[in-house]
Amino acid sequence: MSTRIVSIFVLLILAIACTRVEQVDWEDGTWIDLTYEYSDETIYWPTSDTFQLDTVFVGEAEGGYYYEAYAFASAEHGGTHLDAPIHFYEGGESVEQIEIDQLTGYAVVIDVSEPVADNRDYQIQTSDITSWEEEYGPIPDGSIVLFKTGMGAYWPDAEAYLGTANRGEDALAELSFPGIHPDAAQWIVENRDIKAVGLDTPSLDYGQSERYEAHQVLFEHNIAGFENVANLDQLPTTGAYVIALPMKIKEGSGAPLRIVALVHE
Amino acid sequence: MSTRIVSIFVLLILAIACTRVEQVDWEDGTWIDLTYEYSDETIYWPTSDTFQLDTVFVGEAEGGYYYEAYAFASAEHGGTHLDAPIHFYEGGESVEQIEIDQLTGYAVVIDVSEPVADNRDYQIQTSDITSWEEEYGPIPDGSIVLFKTGMGAYWPDAEAYLGTANRGEDALAELSFPGIHPDAAQWIVENRDIKAVGLDTPSLDYGQSERYEAHQVLFEHNIAGFENVANLDQLPTTGAYVIALPMKIKEGSGAPLRIVALVHE
Ligand SMILES: [Zn+2]
Ligand SMILES: [Zn+2]
Repeated sequence: MSTRIVSIFVLLILAIACTRVEQVDWEDGTWIDLTYEYSDETIYWPTSDTFQLDTVFVGEAEGGYYYEAYAFASAEHGGTHLDAPIHFYEGGESVEQIEIDQLTGYAVVIDVSEPVADNRDYQIQTSDITSWEEEYGPIPDGSIVLFKTGMGAYWPDAEAYLGTANRGEDALAELSFPGIHPDAAQWIVENRDIKAVGLDTPSLDYGQSERYEAHQVLFEHNIAGFENVANLDQLPTTGAYVIALPMKIKEGSGAPLRIVALVHE
Repeated sequence: MSTRIVSIFVLLILAIACTRVEQVDWEDGTWIDLTYEYSDETIYWPTSDTFQLDTVFVGEAEGGYYYEAYAFASAEHGGTHLDAPIHFYEGGESVEQIEIDQLTGYAVVIDVSEPVADNRDYQIQTSDITSWEEEYGPIPDGSIVLFKTGMGAYWPDAEAYLGTANRGEDALAELSFPGIHPDAAQWIVENRDIKAVGLDTPSLDYGQSERYEAHQVLFEHNIAGFENVANLDQLPTTGAYVIALPMKIKEGSGAPLRIVALVHE
């Protein structure tokens, strides 16, 4: 073959190959839904209003067609939801102010289910993160860090998941679940440039936290939180692309979150 | 150059080029938010409960840290929202049953703002779709079809957008906005294989519809609806990738929808 023919061949192959890859990227992956349903079973903080669905109409309408519609009510911070920085940081971003770009990115899944299996009040340590990095490399800029504690297996059993099925102020003393140690949160904001942090527990801080310092540290650095994230066991350690879209509540401190991930083989 | 050297060069270029495209696809586009905020201004159907945000706490908590939280209530079908097939089709899918794959896809934007400018009660005709196809080709399988009526320019002025700012049953007679003619809906389900339909009006059917037949036709064929979609003027005619994630309300007939699009230059 002459060089000219080879060159034309190169251009052709390039055009075909690159077109294909661009399409595969969006349409050939598998969507994993990392979101729990809102229903009577949805777990809320013991002091929060729970989810309520009221029937507006179900059945045959006067006009002769089938029709159903509902209205609903909820606290911001129940079920799979977003924590906006303003939740614990005065002047931080509220729900509608968070850019879509900050809610989308490649996921890094850090498995801490072993220490949690020994101690359900475990606080995730800096060493859990650095050990992960020894195996997989530094957490890339723009990542969404998801901690897999294993607590998701208990959903929707409130007693097993929260440590208590009781409701009201008195139940707060009974909360028992793992979270992020404030020192680990501090290490993240000082050493890594990530977009958001999520986990399969009801709170970034552990159940017995009194000052919610992991929340404070992360939110002061404008890192959003995803709580009660479902199905983390279905994600690969790296490579999943996360899209986390909250209900766009103006001036909200949190909101129901639909969080999904695109996974390629 | 020898053919062997050229071949190595080809492989190298291929590797670099295709790696680059795969990354560009996710991270180099611009996200457009097609969603209105939920607030006191959000437009609802005249007979629906409107959005309500109640303060749980704002200020310095007993523990000495800043804290704010709210609870909210809403009808399913207000603001930028999803219509699930069960809304008008008995036995159709409810919100939580719709696959993520059906809520994500390349957008086709069909501009009908010209006839709507002449007649705000315009019903989108089959010819509006076939004219579009004459210029851009057949609507690809798996598309999300978005009709741009131009009514979005009136948001959040209820009188200009809905035709009335009055509330209650009596206001229904005053509704005036465009929608999809049932014959055009029928043409779509018989001739094209699309995932969902959205538009920048409060309803798939026009304001004076009495039987909501476009809803019925589309929902019977399991095509979801996106209503009160914002910022359609920011989308290209083809090529935007839409991701539309509703709040995951179990057995819901509709839900607040966060709908975004990734646009490449
Ligand atoms: Zn929260
Ligand atoms: Zn609707």
